[in-house]
Amino acid sequence: MRESSSALGHLRPIDSEERAHDPVFPLHHGGKIEIRPTVRIRDNEGLSLAYTPGVAKVSQAIAADESLAYDYTWKSNTVLVVTDGTAVLGLGDIGPLAALPVMEGKALLFKEFANVDAVPICLSCSDVDEIVETVVRIAPAFGGINLEDISAPRCFEVEARLQERLDIPVFHDDQHGTAIVVTAALMNAAEATGRTLADLRAVVSGAGAAGIAVTNMLLDSGIGDIAVADSRGLVSLSRTDLTPVKAALAARTNRAGLKGRIDDALLGADVFIGVSAGQVPEAAVASMANSSIVFALANPNPEVDPEIARKYAAVVATGRSDYPNQINNVLAFPGVFRGALDVRATKITPRMKVAAAEAIAGVVGTDLSPDCIIPSPFNPRVAVEVAGRVAAAARADGVAQL
Amino acid sequence: MRESSSALGHLRPIDSEERAHDPVFPLHHGGKIEIRPTVRIRDNEGLSLAYTPGVAKVSQAIAADESLAYDYTWKSNTVLVVTDGTAVLGLGDIGPLAALPVMEGKALLFKEFANVDAVPICLSCSDVDEIVETVVRIAPAFGGINLEDISAPRCFEVEARLQERLDIPVFHDDQHGTAIVVTAALMNAAEATGRTLADLRAVVSGAGAAGIAVTNMLLDSGIGDIAVADSRGLVSLSRTDLTPVKAALAARTNRAGLKGRIDDALLGADVFIGVSAGQVPEAAVASMANSSIVFALANPNPEVDPEIARKYAAVVATGRSDYPNQINNVLAFPGVFRGALDVRATKITPRMKVAAAEAIAGVVGTDLSPDCIIPSPFNPRVAVEVAGRVAAAARADGVAQL
Repeated sequence: MRESSSALGHLRPIDSEERAHDPVFPLHHGGKIEIRPTVRIRDNEGLSLAYTPGVAKVSQAIAADESLAYDYTWKSNTVLVVTDGTAVLGLGDIGPLAALPVMEGKALLFKEFANVDAVPICLSCSDVDEIVETVVRIAPAFGGINLEDISAPRCFEVEARLQERLDIPVFHDDQHGTAIVVTAALMNAAEATGRTLADLRAVVSGAGAAGIAVTNMLLDSGIGDIAVADSRGLVSLSRTDLTPVKAALAARTNRAGLKGRIDDALLGADVFIGVSAGQVPEAAVASMANSSIVFALANPNPEVDPEIARKYAAVVATGRSDYPNQINNVLAFPGVFRGALDVRATKITPRMKVAAAEAIAGVVGTDLSPDCIIPSPFNPRVAVEVAGRVAAAARADGVAQL
Repeated sequence: MRESSSALGHLRPIDSEERAHDPVFPLHHGGKIEIRPTVRIRDNEGLSLAYTPGVAKVSQAIAADESLAYDYTWKSNTVLVVTDGTAVLGLGDIGPLAALPVMEGKALLFKEFANVDAVPICLSCSDVDEIVETVVRIAPAFGGINLEDISAPRCFEVEARLQERLDIPVFHDDQHGTAIVVTAALMNAAEATGRTLADLRAVVSGAGAAGIAVTNMLLDSGIGDIAVADSRGLVSLSRTDLTPVKAALAARTNRAGLKGRIDDALLGADVFIGVSAGQVPEAAVASMANSSIVFALANPNPEVDPEIARKYAAVVATGRSDYPNQINNVLAFPGVFRGALDVRATKITPRMKVAAAEAIAGVVGTDLSPDCIIPSPFNPRVAVEVAGRVAAAARADGVAQL
C-alpha cells in the first residue's frame, strides 16, 4: 500500500531500450487524459455565445448568485486530485512530477467508472501550511478534493484543515478509499465464514494513512477488537514513542494491551490486514485462529505469499489482480465522489463511508464465497450502487445541498 | 477590452425566466469542457498498465529523469489558464467563480483551435505574492501558464515574477495576445493604405494591461510615434501621478510631449487604438489625418461607433464579430502556445510575439483590403502559421528545448 517505501531502492533510471520493450511506456506516451470541449464552436455566432461577448452574461449571473456556478460551469462535476508526491504507491517520496502518471491514472478512472472530471495537481511544496493554503486558493472552481499519496502523518492534518476551510468534500483516498474497500471485503469475508464483524479480532500491520483509517472505520463498523502494529511493534497505551495520531489510536484499540511484535498479536487472531509491505512469517499466519482471514495488500509483494496464506486461512485477499479477491480503491472513490457531487454534499461523513462499504459488499450478492468477497472493478453496478448509497447517506446526515 | 469596469453597474441578478430565454445559458449548462481519457481501460490487464502496479514504472522513470514527464504525461501539451477574477471582460472584479465561464471558454478555444489542453484555475486570492506562490506550487505538471483577467498593475508584477521563477512559458493574454493581434492588424492596415508602421503616429486610449502591452509591442515593431492616454489624460514625462509602469511608458512614448486630453493628441494622428471603453467624440475622430485608422476595441460598446468612424477613417476595426476586421485574441493565444509547446520553449520572447503577429498578418495575403486586414478566427491556417513561426522564433532565440 501507499506508505511503504520499500521499493525506494528501485529508483534507478530506465533507459530508452527498456522503455521501448515494456508496454507500459507506449501506453503512457503523451499522457492518459485530455481536456475536451463539450460544446462545439463552428462559427462567429458560436464563438460569441461560448466566449465574448455572450459569456459575460453567464459570469454576471454567477457574480450575483454564486450557486449558479453549479449549473453553468464544470464545477458541479469536477474534483481536484492533489498530491505532493511524498508517498507515491510503493515508491515513497519521488516528488510531484514523478507522481503525475499516477494522478492521471486516477483521473482516467474517475471518468471511466463514474463520469467524474478529475484534474491532477502535483504540488511542489510539502509543508502542511503551504499545501492547505494552496488548495484553498485553487479550490473555488472545483466540486471536491481528492487528496492522494501525501505521506503520514502530514496527510491527517492536511485533510482535517481543508475540511474545516472548504465547503466541498475533501477525501484522502489512501485513507478512506482503502478503509471503505477493506471494510466491504471484511464484511463479506465474515459472512462467507458464518460470522459478523463483532465476532472478529483483527491485527493491522501498518500505522500509516491506510492502517489508521482502516482501523478507525472497522471500529466504527463494530469489529470485536483490533490491534495495530507499526515498524516498532504493537501500538499500545504503554508505548511512549507515539505520535498524537497513534496515541489516539492506542486509546481505541488493542483492548488486551498486547505488547511486542505483530507475531504476538496474530496468535489466535481471526483477521490479518497488511497495509505496510512488512513481511509476516508463515509460523505467525499458522498461529491464527481457525477460519482465519488474511488480507495481504502490499503491492506488488504481499506481506504474506497468497499461496502460503491459503494453507491456513479460510479467506485470502490481496491488492493484486492475478489472485482472487483484489482489494482495489477503484471500487470506492469513483462512486463516492459521484454520489457526493450528485447531491452537492459539503463533506464526506463517516455514515457516507459506511454506506459505500455496504454498497460494495452488497454487489457481490449471491456470488458470495471465500474466493469472491469483493466485486470486480469492472462490474458496472459498483459505482452506481456506491453513488446511490453515498448520496442517500449525505441526505440523511444533512450535508446534501440537493 | 479587459481593463474596463464600465459595465459593473450591470451586475444584477439574472432570474430563471431570463436564463431560460437566453440561448447563452442552455449552452453553458454543466460547463463547456470535460476531462477525457486518451487510453481505454477494458480489463484487469489495462488497469494494471494504466494504474497500479504498472504505472509505478513510469513514475520511477520520471523520478530518475524528470524530462521524461514530457514524454509520458500530459505536461507536454497542457497549460494552466489562471485568473483571480479581478478584471473579467468588461465586468471588472467579479471574483474567481464568476470568472470560470470565461476560463472554460478559453480552454475550449485552446483545444478547438490548437489542440492544446488547458486547465482553468480560478484563484481565491488576489495578493501578488500569494498568486505567484500559488502558481509556482501548482506548476510542475504543466507545460505553460496563460494568465488571464488579472487587473493592472498587479498583472505586470505577477507575470514578471512567474517568468523569473518558472522554466515554462508564462503569457498574460490580456497584454500580449491583444498586442499581437493589434500589431498584426496595424501592419496590414498600414499596408492596405500604402504605408508602413514607421509612417504612423498612433494614439492609444487605455493604459491598463492591454494598452501598455500594445504600446510596447508597436514601439518594438517600429511605429513612428505613439501616445497613450489613461483616465486622467495623456501620459507624458510632465505627469507626476504615474505608476512606475506608466512612468516607464512615458519615457518611450509621446515624443512631442503632448499634454491634456486624448482629443488633443488625436488632432492629425494617423491611428486611434481604443482598449479602454472610454468614448471618443466624433469631432476628435474627424480631426485625425487623412487615411486614418481606427481600432475601437471595447466590447460590446466600441469607443467610437463604427458607423461614425467609417465616415472619416480609411480602416476601421472593432472587437465585435458583426463588423468587418474583428480584433480577437483567439487569433493569437492558441497558436502561440502550440508553437511554444511544440519546441518546449522555456519562455515567450519579444521575437516570438512579433513572429506571431507577422504570421497572423501574413495569412490575409492577397485578400488584403481596408475591410479585410485580419483573418477570420475560423481560418484553419492561422494557428498553424502562428505555431510554426513562434516555434522557429523560439529556436532562433535559443529558448527552445527541442
